[in-house]
This record gives sequence, structure tokens and C-alpha cells, in this order.
Amino acid sequence: MAQSVVLEGALLEGAIGKCCGAPVRAPLTRPEAEELASLLKAVADPARLQLLSIIRSAADCSACVCDLVPAVGLSQPTVSHHLKVLTKAGVLTREQRGTQAWFRLVPERLDQLGQIFA
Amino acid sequence: MAQSVVLEGALLEGAIGKCCGAPVRAPLTRPEAEELASLLKAVADPARLQLLSIIRSAADCSACVCDLVPAVGLSQPTVSHHLKVLTKAGVLTREQRGTQAWFRLVPERLDQLGQIFA
Repeated sequence: MAQSVVLEGALLEGAIGKCCGAPVRAPLTRPEAEELASLLKAVADPARLQLLSIIRSAADCSACVCDLVPAVGLSQPTVSHHLKVLTKAGVLTREQRGTQAWFRLVPERLDQLGQIFA
Repeated sequence: MAQSVVLEGALLEGAIGKCCGAPVRAPLTRPEAEELASLLKAVADPARLQLLSIIRSAADCSACVCDLVPAVGLSQPTVSHHLKVLTKAGVLTREQRGTQAWFRLVPERLDQLGQIFA
């Protein structure tokens, strides 16, 4: 039975090919689309994309909020708000080190975002 | 000179490695982040993600608006509005065939979106 499914899949792929070079997939259901849209909305902001790219280019993919504030040139409360949105979306994790908050990238979550368009 | 640059690049990559498994890159500038955020905002909507996924799974990555309306279960003006946003963002192209509008995916633009998180 499992083999038959695999064969059908192979035949289907052979017949339809890769549309636009992308693998063939079933369209998103409404709940799937809602979850992905919510994740995309969390990152679809210039300051948040800048913060993610700065953290990503840092050693160990983590950065202190004290370094992020001057790097993006926004106020500390504004940067903290953006970091909170990204943490809530699961794109960053927050760790308290003494008096400073550090933020680290979650690569699995970035992969999930990239897969939307792969 | 070109060889020296390549060598430096190789040394840099060797020293820093691939943070989170992602290639090392310079952080985004504000104008770059603004352009990417604007593109992401255009697709960060459940109906638009559904429309893109339906068009993507269609033959030749193109679909008639007459088929998209019943597929997403929204009104014709609402679907037209979403398709207009996606077309303006360069993710779709519009083609008039007789009385019907057809929309086709622009794979290069999808790749650009995927690269943000690659």
C-alpha cells in the first residue's frame, strides 16, 4: 500500500513536473494560511528585519539588546517592543544575562519562513 | 586583487563558520529592510497566501480569477483586491484572456522572498 502511494506520487510528479521550478504541493488550507500569515506579519517590518539580520551576523547568532539599540538607531523601548514581537513569534529566544537581555535566532523558525516560498 | 578578495572571503567564512547553518552575510541596511518588509507585507495575509498556493499548484502556475473566487470562498471584489496587491508587489502577473483575467506566479519574486530567510 505504502509502495503504491509512493509510485502514484512519482507518476504525478512526472506528469505535472515542477511548476515554476517549485515542488508540487497541495494548496494551503485556511488555518494553515492563517498561521503562516501571522508568522510573516511578525517579521514584515523594516526594523524587525534589520534586527534579525544583525543578530544573524553576530557571533553565535545572539546579541545583547545594549548592542542592538545603537545598531538600528531607534529608542530602547522601540527596540524592546520589536524584539518582544519576534520572541512571541518564536523567531528569537530571550535570555537574561545579569542586567542585560540577550536574544538568539531560532534557525528552525527561519527555515519555516523560507519554506513558504521554496 | 580579485584572488586576494576570494581568499579573504574564504578565510572569513572559515573563521566565523556558518552561524545557525546560514551563510554569513552583512546586516541589512535600512533601505534594503524597507524594500523587503514591503514585499513581505504584500504576502503576509491568509487569503493572499491561499491564492498564491492555489495558483502555484495549478497547471503552468496560472489560474483564472473565475476559478480562484470559488476556491478561496471570498467575494469577487475581495479576491480581485488581493490579486491586485500581489500583482503590484510583482509576485503575480495579470493577463487578459477574452473576458477573463488570468494570473501567473513570478518564480523569481518568490525566490527573492525565500532568500530573506535562507
